[in-house]
Amino acid sequence: MSLKFKNAKRIEGLDSNVWIEFTKLAADPSVVNLGQGLPDISPPVYVKEELSKIAAIDSLNQYTRGFGHPSLVKALSCLYEKFYQNQINPNKEILVTVGAYGSLFNAIQGLIDEGDEVIVIVPFYDCYEPMVRMAGAIPVFIPLRSKLVDGKKWSSSDWTLDPQELASKFNSKTKAIILNTPHNPLGKVYTKEELQVIADLCIKYDTLCISDEVYEWLVYTGNKHFKIATFPGMWERTITIGSAGKTFSVTGWKLGWSIGPKHLIKHLQTVQQNTIYTCATPLQEALAQALWIDIKRMDDPECYFNSLPKELEVKRNRMVHLLESVGLKPIVPDGGYFIIADVSLLDTDLSDMKNSNEPYDYKFVKWMTKNKKLSAIPVSAFCNAETKLQFEKFVRFCFIKKDSTLDAAEEIIKAWSRLKF
Amino acid sequence: MSLKFKNAKRIEGLDSNVWIEFTKLAADPSVVNLGQGLPDISPPVYVKEELSKIAAIDSLNQYTRGFGHPSLVKALSCLYEKFYQNQINPNKEILVTVGAYGSLFNAIQGLIDEGDEVIVIVPFYDCYEPMVRMAGAIPVFIPLRSKLVDGKKWSSSDWTLDPQELASKFNSKTKAIILNTPHNPLGKVYTKEELQVIADLCIKYDTLCISDEVYEWLVYTGNKHFKIATFPGMWERTITIGSAGKTFSVTGWKLGWSIGPKHLIKHLQTVQQNTIYTCATPLQEALAQALWIDIKRMDDPECYFNSLPKELEVKRNRMVHLLESVGLKPIVPDGGYFIIADVSLLDTDLSDMKNSNEPYDYKFVKWMTKNKKLSAIPVSAFCNAETKLQFEKFVRFCFIKKDSTLDAAEEIIKAWSRLKF
Repeated sequence: MSLKFKNAKRIEGLDSNVWIEFTKLAADPSVVNLGQGLPDISPPVYVKEELSKIAAIDSLNQYTRGFGHPSLVKALSCLYEKFYQNQINPNKEILVTVGAYGSLFNAIQGLIDEGDEVIVIVPFYDCYEPMVRMAGAIPVFIPLRSKLVDGKKWSSSDWTLDPQELASKFNSKTKAIILNTPHNPLGKVYTKEELQVIADLCIKYDTLCISDEVYEWLVYTGNKHFKIATFPGMWERTITIGSAGKTFSVTGWKLGWSIGPKHLIKHLQTVQQNTIYTCATPLQEALAQALWIDIKRMDDPECYFNSLPKELEVKRNRMVHLLESVGLKPIVPDGGYFIIADVSLLDTDLSDMKNSNEPYDYKFVKWMTKNKKLSAIPVSAFCNAETKLQFEKFVRFCFIKKDSTLDAAEEIIKAWSRLKF
Repeated sequence: MSLKFKNAKRIEGLDSNVWIEFTKLAADPSVVNLGQGLPDISPPVYVKEELSKIAAIDSLNQYTRGFGHPSLVKALSCLYEKFYQNQINPNKEILVTVGAYGSLFNAIQGLIDEGDEVIVIVPFYDCYEPMVRMAGAIPVFIPLRSKLVDGKKWSSSDWTLDPQELASKFNSKTKAIILNTPHNPLGKVYTKEELQVIADLCIKYDTLCISDEVYEWLVYTGNKHFKIATFPGMWERTITIGSAGKTFSVTGWKLGWSIGPKHLIKHLQTVQQNTIYTCATPLQEALAQALWIDIKRMDDPECYFNSLPKELEVKRNRMVHLLESVGLKPIVPDGGYFIIADVSLLDTDLSDMKNSNEPYDYKFVKWMTKNKKLSAIPVSAFCNAETKLQFEKFVRFCFIKKDSTLDAAEEIIKAWSRLKF
């Protein structure tokens, strides 16, 4: 075959993707899918109704402003001004993107050069590493480590960065750190003190911070989400990323946003105008209308930003009890809609699984999907090659699922446990 | 300001964009906008209705397959099998992207390396050049040249490539040529013979062809659209790009597609999974449903693929007469929904325009937008720095507009002409 048919070097080795592999596996309708972070609960009725209405309006089916539909950037600036010390310029400090994924890509391509170092905290949302590599930059990994927990519940807050180890990763080549709070897959919600350590290092080493906060509303009792961009000295060096899919349980809308100072956002805008130019107009207008409904009732328990975490906390607790009831020790998440557990305690016989050089959790999830008709995501997919061993006993379950789905998962897990013990 | 706030080198100098600049100008509601290629005619009712219906279905608001929603890639493969000699594998030979823009980006990032040469035909859709530069590659330009036309109408088919000049642009470093037929902004529909010259060179120099065919249905009486991918030896080296926005007059949906052999499409898929992951589900499903409606009646004059060009041909003829009636000599387009004309014949006094080092057409369009409340797009925006002078007397008007918009444009142009002569 012609050499001209080969991929460009920038994507060499970046062709495997956990979502594509495991989503295909879970596509079998007989499988109970707790894999991909994909709600099967209904999105709010008004969100769907707004899209239905807007689809009928001719002009809202045509191109809109490239950096964000005017009504949407206005709604976002109004929403986030409540959390930042300053007003947010809707045209210069916000960029609407194709999902939070698109924001991450724009930030990395717009700001990170070949040879730059980017600090990535392990485990990490899986696209961080290939995106950094596609920019020709060097990901520098640091794992979250857990202290010993005896007797009491294991919590995502037991997983922390060692401040000295973190400091050792910064140097003059460090261009950015990618932060994710609430964290996927651990469910960790960084405390104010933890974020201050990161902020101090960013300022000391004059480093950017790309803060992926897509689960910002999904924080459970006793925890609070902090935005590192609001820490002194951080606004000017931080891109904060949000998601319509996570905010309104419409992952299929693929709308996200970056918020930050004009001097950084303008570079993300340049990437956008040379990659996709603009996002879908009807979805942007529907999102703007939906946001206004909830912006006007943010102190009301019915506001979706408040009601969804309440609804999910019940589901989280149910998953904790279910996993504990079969002898597992889940890491109780403080935020997000995932829970991880060490499945090696189940002592499953995986000897008939092919690809025996795959990590344990890959084999386990494939075995479970095939034999138990329950799917999940292997946590080593969220690790670099060197740290996979530290996390390969963990599997991630998604719990933004309707009760009937969780019932079905419970039935599978309980029957499996009866078989074993 | 910190050096760390600077843009990555790959986007250096790529921050200006004609759409962002001129769309802002035309946003004034008192301006009659014949600028951006943005239909103000109604999209087909069934297209809008499909979206309205689908918005109400929970599962169609969630993530779908990353490389294209299953029902959409199936519809596209069924549609295009009618034009290609072979069956098209919906999963391996089609990629759904964020508009045709996204397809161009994926193709260039996935296949073009730093230092590669890419042949670009001038004038060109403006993003080709910065996209090639963002990949670190070298655009090699060749202009379409017009033969002398005396007396008779000036047609887009009078603009041709010189075969010897074209051959001189190919060498061992040439990775690809970007083709655009029907052509924006000229409206040229490449003949079979012209495409054969390009195909022969692609094969001789083992070069890829990125064929932007977003206006494929919009071809006027006496002309026929040919797909270079169907020429012998070309399928294996061609990415053909289409657009939902142009096909169904819904530019705001931002859905496009790439079709090509598996060995090329897989590299575009790798780019997609590391940039935006997937496109919006409700729009993809609505597009699939709309396509099925028209696939089933492709020989019927009511099929939108047949009815839209008929509707537009009337508008094209009207624009030709209007421009001729005020003494201009438009280049009659054989396809697409744009018409260009040399506006220097109007001898407008632009001496009070600022930015006097801008090309003539930039100043002219700004002057016309401000003083005549009519907007258009300067054709030198579709040129590289060296060829701007060849095209700076031309301005592009978009005619996919309802009659009342064309009436308003006619009124402006006729009043202006009365004032002058």
